[in-house]
Amino acid sequence: MEFDTPPGTRDFLPEEMAVRQEVMDRIKSVFELYGFRPAETPAFEYAEVLEGKYGEEEKLIYKFEDMGGRKLALRYDLTVPLVRLFAQNQLRLPFKRYCISRVWRFDRPQKGRYREFWQCDVDIVGSSSFAADVEIVSCAIDALCAIGLKDFSFKINSRKVLDSILQYLGIRKDVELTVFRALDKLEKIGEKKVRSELAFLADTEFAGLMDVLRLKDVSALEERIGTSEGTYELKQIFDALCERGKKVVLDLGMVRGLDYYSGPIFEVSLGDCGSIAGGGRYDRLIGDMSGKDSPAVGISLGIERIMEIVKDRGLFKGFGAIDAYVLSAEDESLKEAEKLCCELREEDICCEYDVMGRNFSNQMKYASGVGAKKVVIVGKRGLSEGKVTLKDMISGNQVDIERKKLSKELKGALRSK
Amino acid sequence: MEFDTPPGTRDFLPEEMAVRQEVMDRIKSVFELYGFRPAETPAFEYAEVLEGKYGEEEKLIYKFEDMGGRKLALRYDLTVPLVRLFAQNQLRLPFKRYCISRVWRFDRPQKGRYREFWQCDVDIVGSSSFAADVEIVSCAIDALCAIGLKDFSFKINSRKVLDSILQYLGIRKDVELTVFRALDKLEKIGEKKVRSELAFLADTEFAGLMDVLRLKDVSALEERIGTSEGTYELKQIFDALCERGKKVVLDLGMVRGLDYYSGPIFEVSLGDCGSIAGGGRYDRLIGDMSGKDSPAVGISLGIERIMEIVKDRGLFKGFGAIDAYVLSAEDESLKEAEKLCCELREEDICCEYDVMGRNFSNQMKYASGVGAKKVVIVGKRGLSEGKVTLKDMISGNQVDIERKKLSKELKGALRSK
Repeated sequence: MEFDTPPGTRDFLPEEMAVRQEVMDRIKSVFELYGFRPAETPAFEYAEVLEGKYGEEEKLIYKFEDMGGRKLALRYDLTVPLVRLFAQNQLRLPFKRYCISRVWRFDRPQKGRYREFWQCDVDIVGSSSFAADVEIVSCAIDALCAIGLKDFSFKINSRKVLDSILQYLGIRKDVELTVFRALDKLEKIGEKKVRSELAFLADTEFAGLMDVLRLKDVSALEERIGTSEGTYELKQIFDALCERGKKVVLDLGMVRGLDYYSGPIFEVSLGDCGSIAGGGRYDRLIGDMSGKDSPAVGISLGIERIMEIVKDRGLFKGFGAIDAYVLSAEDESLKEAEKLCCELREEDICCEYDVMGRNFSNQMKYASGVGAKKVVIVGKRGLSEGKVTLKDMISGNQVDIERKKLSKELKGALRSK
Repeated sequence: MEFDTPPGTRDFLPEEMAVRQEVMDRIKSVFELYGFRPAETPAFEYAEVLEGKYGEEEKLIYKFEDMGGRKLALRYDLTVPLVRLFAQNQLRLPFKRYCISRVWRFDRPQKGRYREFWQCDVDIVGSSSFAADVEIVSCAIDALCAIGLKDFSFKINSRKVLDSILQYLGIRKDVELTVFRALDKLEKIGEKKVRSELAFLADTEFAGLMDVLRLKDVSALEERIGTSEGTYELKQIFDALCERGKKVVLDLGMVRGLDYYSGPIFEVSLGDCGSIAGGGRYDRLIGDMSGKDSPAVGISLGIERIMEIVKDRGLFKGFGAIDAYVLSAEDESLKEAEKLCCELREEDICCEYDVMGRNFSNQMKYASGVGAKKVVIVGKRGLSEGKVTLKDMISGNQVDIERKKLSKELKGALRSK
């Protein structure tokens, strides 16, 4: 029997899953601090809902047919399902929703690239104000900081500004998307290959483009190509970000792959790890899809890349460790161990006792293996005097304490850490 | 364009999703208190991993073919993927894992029956001791209590005991599964129909069976059919459950539909809502599937039924409400509102400000609509004196306070609730 998981999918064993869950929980907490609320859509949609939205990436949509012959597709991202949900419901505006869930892509599996992975998205639907962009940017910054990643580079650009640049250089509007898609690969494939993809541009046009894209701030850009709606919006965003603005840089060469962006765009990268988050404003997508016009802006954090960094850096070590292991010194004390566990759990102390019929030393080995912080030793002799032994697994120190006082003492000891 | 979700699937809008998430979070906390740790498997498996495990329900497996022609299936439950994961990895025993995630069944969609839904499972793999059964039962009881459901009936029975009963009545071993499957429907289809499904039994055999199944405790059963391994195990479990044992009843007529149970079985029902949880010991499944023998026991809480009860009873009302809405009295104070939000979030206060360009009264309407507990009014005049206004949305009371002291005062006020 084929016993592996299907290609591009993985199991998450407890050690990894506990950390992954903690990372997602911290992100979730930040999302909720900003007043975003959870919404969830099915794992799959009618295929036609997803088709025609992802440009060159369209081929990666994970399509299948159900047993009733329906053409379905596992969701490719969390954005298009959000748009479908929004179009279908009467919702209070602004609709601020977050979603932390899985998506699927029929990609060629390779190191770091999966067919099934998690995304964490926040979106604000209904607001065309730069204030919404600011909320999205600062929320993403806070979420990354909350998981201990502070050395990222938050790049911001604007499709409107890119439009103005092309217009300034006299490049035709109808090749715009082609130019954007080529520029998106600049870092990956280099200037030479981009040049050959854009062979239809004159040398002066291409050189002018490369030159302008190197500018590092909005004022310098305005000096070169003049002011426009796009530059005005970017200035407002940078201005409103205040303290957080220090973490944000203008990167005119960052264009994002998707076709549907219409205003400010965002991308977060961290060292050699590449992009760990991306998003932007997509004011036309909802109207194009549903006929119900509505501006929207959002960002998606890529949990897989983030998890690699978290693992490399050893953040959240020892997650999912239990507070106390209640060790029964002999068979006769097992029932007492179980009773103690009941009491400790009532005090919110995470604990376990032996269900394997193990002897003293094997129970101790297990307790140490699961990273128990404390071991409570329950034995006949101690119990006859109303006492149990409390062992600290880091220092190795042992003390006898009254059985009645255990839960209080243990709680105190655990809390003081 | 088809804009609905595919048949049998649903969107979860924030109001419902926030409650659903809270319910799952509370269950998760109890699972963790017992030392269970999270593990996750892919949404789909090779179809052959799932096939041949679910008896009559096999036809509901959600099969599909991927674009590479692989025969896959969305997972039917969380148990069989756990077994596959366990067989594939070297894991520390006991392997105590929980999983709160979605499963899919190609069922005929109807009220309360979906093709996509959540399950919450806890399992202990590696222990054949009744202590593991006790952990599973008391963990499930605590989880249900943690979400405010206390009036459930926790039924326990044993496949081994059912075996002994059939043996005592002289019913042949080879019709055992047929008898179990028919008995499983007793409550649903009534004694008459079960009788006709079991036409091969003599009248005395059937009457004897019905008679024994009505017995209400293990001692009465032992008096009738004698002691056996099965009755001994049940007595041990009832004995060890102590206080929690009061919530547990013997129900010899409860047999559970699945073929793979091998010892104690559990089912929780609540009033008219039917079964809200079910599980049991499956000591042979892992060996049968993988050749790697290992005892196991677990239970699965059915989130969909639980959510219906939670909604009917109005538990967790107002979930996902924000702490404070920061209202800017005029355009000029918007930036100040945003700055204030930054400060409040640093104090872990969940807040929002206007991103819609709304006037005073529409902002107030929104704040009330999203259930904000407090509204902070920021206006030019107040700011010139270093003051903002704090309004309590329940009492309607308003007080002016120093802007500098806002975050501290607000935190205090929110915490005292």
